[in-house]
Amino acid sequence: MTPARVLAILDGRDPVVGRKVAFAINALIVLTAVSVALETVPSLQSCCNFAFVGFEVLAVGVFGIEYALRVWATPDRRGYVLSLGGIIDLLSFLPSLLVLGTEWSTIRTLRLVRLIRLFRLLRMTLALDRLQAALRDVREELVVFGMLALIVIYLAGVGIYHFEHTAQPEAFGSIPESLWWAVVSLTTVGYGDVYPITGGGRLFTAVILFLGLGIVAVPTGLIASALAAQRDHDRTVHRPPGPPDDA
Amino acid sequence: MTPARVLAILDGRDPVVGRKVAFAINALIVLTAVSVALETVPSLQSCCNFAFVGFEVLAVGVFGIEYALRVWATPDRRGYVLSLGGIIDLLSFLPSLLVLGTEWSTIRTLRLVRLIRLFRLLRMTLALDRLQAALRDVREELVVFGMLALIVIYLAGVGIYHFEHTAQPEAFGSIPESLWWAVVSLTTVGYGDVYPITGGGRLFTAVILFLGLGIVAVPTGLIASALAAQRDHDRTVHRPPGPPDDA
Amino acid sequence: MTPARVLAILDGRDPVVGRKVAFAINALIVLTAVSVALETVPSLQSCCNFAFVGFEVLAVGVFGIEYALRVWATPDRRGYVLSLGGIIDLLSFLPSLLVLGTEWSTIRTLRLVRLIRLFRLLRMTLALDRLQAALRDVREELVVFGMLALIVIYLAGVGIYHFEHTAQPEAFGSIPESLWWAVVSLTTVGYGDVYPITGGGRLFTAVILFLGLGIVAVPTGLIASALAAQRDHDRTVHRPPGPPDDA
Amino acid sequence: MTPARVLAILDGRDPVVGRKVAFAINALIVLTAVSVALETVPSLQSCCNFAFVGFEVLAVGVFGIEYALRVWATPDRRGYVLSLGGIIDLLSFLPSLLVLGTEWSTIRTLRLVRLIRLFRLLRMTLALDRLQAALRDVREELVVFGMLALIVIYLAGVGIYHFEHTAQPEAFGSIPESLWWAVVSLTTVGYGDVYPITGGGRLFTAVILFLGLGIVAVPTGLIASALAAQRDHDRTVHRPPGPPDDA
Repeated sequence: MTPARVLAILDGRDPVVGRKVAFAINALIVLTAVSVALETVPSLQSCCNFAFVGFEVLAVGVFGIEYALRVWATPDRRGYVLSLGGIIDLLSFLPSLLVLGTEWSTIRTLRLVRLIRLFRLLRMTLALDRLQAALRDVREELVVFGMLALIVIYLAGVGIYHFEHTAQPEAFGSIPESLWWAVVSLTTVGYGDVYPITGGGRLFTAVILFLGLGIVAVPTGLIASALAAQRDHDRTVHRPPGPPDDA
Repeated sequence: MTPARVLAILDGRDPVVGRKVAFAINALIVLTAVSVALETVPSLQSCCNFAFVGFEVLAVGVFGIEYALRVWATPDRRGYVLSLGGIIDLLSFLPSLLVLGTEWSTIRTLRLVRLIRLFRLLRMTLALDRLQAALRDVREELVVFGMLALIVIYLAGVGIYHFEHTAQPEAFGSIPESLWWAVVSLTTVGYGDVYPITGGGRLFTAVILFLGLGIVAVPTGLIASALAAQRDHDRTVHRPPGPPDDA
Repeated sequence: MTPARVLAILDGRDPVVGRKVAFAINALIVLTAVSVALETVPSLQSCCNFAFVGFEVLAVGVFGIEYALRVWATPDRRGYVLSLGGIIDLLSFLPSLLVLGTEWSTIRTLRLVRLIRLFRLLRMTLALDRLQAALRDVREELVVFGMLALIVIYLAGVGIYHFEHTAQPEAFGSIPESLWWAVVSLTTVGYGDVYPITGGGRLFTAVILFLGLGIVAVPTGLIASALAAQRDHDRTVHRPPGPPDDA
Repeated sequence: MTPARVLAILDGRDPVVGRKVAFAINALIVLTAVSVALETVPSLQSCCNFAFVGFEVLAVGVFGIEYALRVWATPDRRGYVLSLGGIIDLLSFLPSLLVLGTEWSTIRTLRLVRLIRLFRLLRMTLALDRLQAALRDVREELVVFGMLALIVIYLAGVGIYHFEHTAQPEAFGSIPESLWWAVVSLTTVGYGDVYPITGGGRLFTAVILFLGLGIVAVPTGLIASALAAQRDHDRTVHRPPGPPDDA
């Protein structure tokens, strides 16, 4: 087999094998992620630790062979090894080769980055390109709203500290602890572990929620409308002229 | 009565009877759904079980007769019986005929699928078509964001597990349990049954909320703007040319 | 004073008095709303009940005199008395005239409906018209999503009942009680009074949240984009042609 | 050094020094905000109070010198001292000069207002202008929705009080206390400190949430779409004519 064909098979571009091998590698990445999660379940740890180790050995073997094949098959070897993609491919099996303990399992989740290739396999590069273009479009707005959000959260935390720390010295013991309340409230998660109980604190919360919710939620709307604009743009540019679009 | 007229009456297209029979069948579907809910209330079970069974018998009778009439009246009998609509019509009374115990009540809620006909009755097919077209428009974006959301939730669950499982071995006992926290937090539901208590876990939560909320919330905005675009499109295409629209 | 001038003064259209009298009446409506709220505070009830009664007597007097003046000044008396506005004006003082107990305080909040006139006073009829037109534009979509939301909430309630009612017979004791959980979860309020604890119930919750959140949240986005379209429409239609808009 | 050059250095417009000095002053503002937060942590108060005081003395010194330089270098001294910017610059060090106790720390957070200059430094004035223009565009809608939101919250509070105050005399003891529930629910924060337990109260909550959520959430969507419109407007107006935009 020529090196070019090996690469085509690994990337799912081979006319005969098709996307089978590429899908299998992606499925293996997803399965190792599931395995990383299940390994931490106490009841499974006692019964099936052997299976988890075995599966990891298999996965590391496959990823290792894939890496070796890619290094061998790529014309510009040095370029691939030093590229971000090459480093991620290496990191998907090297840490497990060196240490196989569960305490290092987090580093194995780095493999998920490789799922980006899945979008290419599913022929969705256009959608990803649009997302990237949309984010670039609203980049400045995201920075402005990000900074405003940080300032609002800081001021909310400082404010609630002054209203509540005498009434609730444990929950609002310091401004850093009050900032936790500000994050949980302005994202509307509201776990209920900390909340104001004084009249002043509740009034302050009402005011800050009405002013602050928008600052935290507007960026989502911005990204959505930038994406919609990108889709319109794509449709106008990429489609051939002809009878009016009917979809 | 001709078979065609029977069908027209059942579908609410008869010029004399109008939509009365069709509305009555839909109302019966809604009432059986209410009945399924009320049957589970302990105080009603003791007093009124007889009434619930009686009502179910009535409903099964009506749905059975309607099914028989449709089979008899449709020109392409085999096609109707094997169509999705025909199977749903059959499932709306058959399970209750076979078993009438409350433990099977869930399967009766399948009848709700038949309410899709209600949209047609209410002359809202256009709105449903627009919704379908809008969903088709943003199909790729929904897949991309769906996959990104799954990856973010997975990474959030893995991350919080590492920060919290020594401090809260019960709430964050394993990664699958931590994933429950990730779902509840990133959808901003925030029941408050599990939440981070360590400084690192709280900082991690703040970061993941700011990055992750958008990924979960953007699809909603996308569907909304695609629907708005569809409405504009409809208005331009379906309306006759004339004086500028004033609505 | 002519009847026409009395009406103009009450409606804030008089060239001499201006909007003073109209604003004063609206301020009184807001103040009675504040008073209705404060009356229920136990500590204020004991000390200041006399003041609340006195203020209500004053307000009832003002609203009664205003009503009498409007009846006297309107050319088409019968039309005003029987109109919705006339009935609301009557209801803003009649119930308090008949009974002045706090247990009837709710009916007094009907007066708030009269604040709609405030929008006219603040010269914001255009914005209200746009809101009305936008709601009319998305009327069909709101009905479709409203029905879908009801169906999703019903199915969510039925589903969680089956997963949780044996594990939590108190919180999920019946389907109507489970529907409360469905409402609180799908609106992302998440009080934390009821939440799933079984693995199946949590997985079901995750799935239903991802499918259902959009159905509940999309209408908000629809109204927002219909309002934006109305604003564009207004700007194009109502502004005189000229140099390109710079705002 | 000429006064003009001193001003240019402070504002980050100097061709030689560049934005270094201006960035350093902004970094100092952020650091004092962090310091204000950390001062309230009990464990840091005992060990490092000396460091906090020392850092504050340094910051006050820098801000004081900057103020003096600006007064000296600005041609229109009186105009600068009496301008909003000048007053904020003065307030960023004067209160700390007079009193250095932690109980006055809130007033020091006023300095954060000065971070607005940071947007200018980061060349993001255009994005800020667009935000301002977008807010001006939807000004009327924001006022309408703000008033509607206040009315809905008031009516929600009055309603829930009538449903719940006999069942939960502590949580819903008065209408002002019930308003706290209304704010927490309609913003979807849902801490879980107060929630309805009666059937009527829960049904009322479900209805008010479906009607009210939109009123609270629509303004966010409006701001997002107004911002998107501004961005389109900018792109059309400010870019030179030429080949179609490819970004």
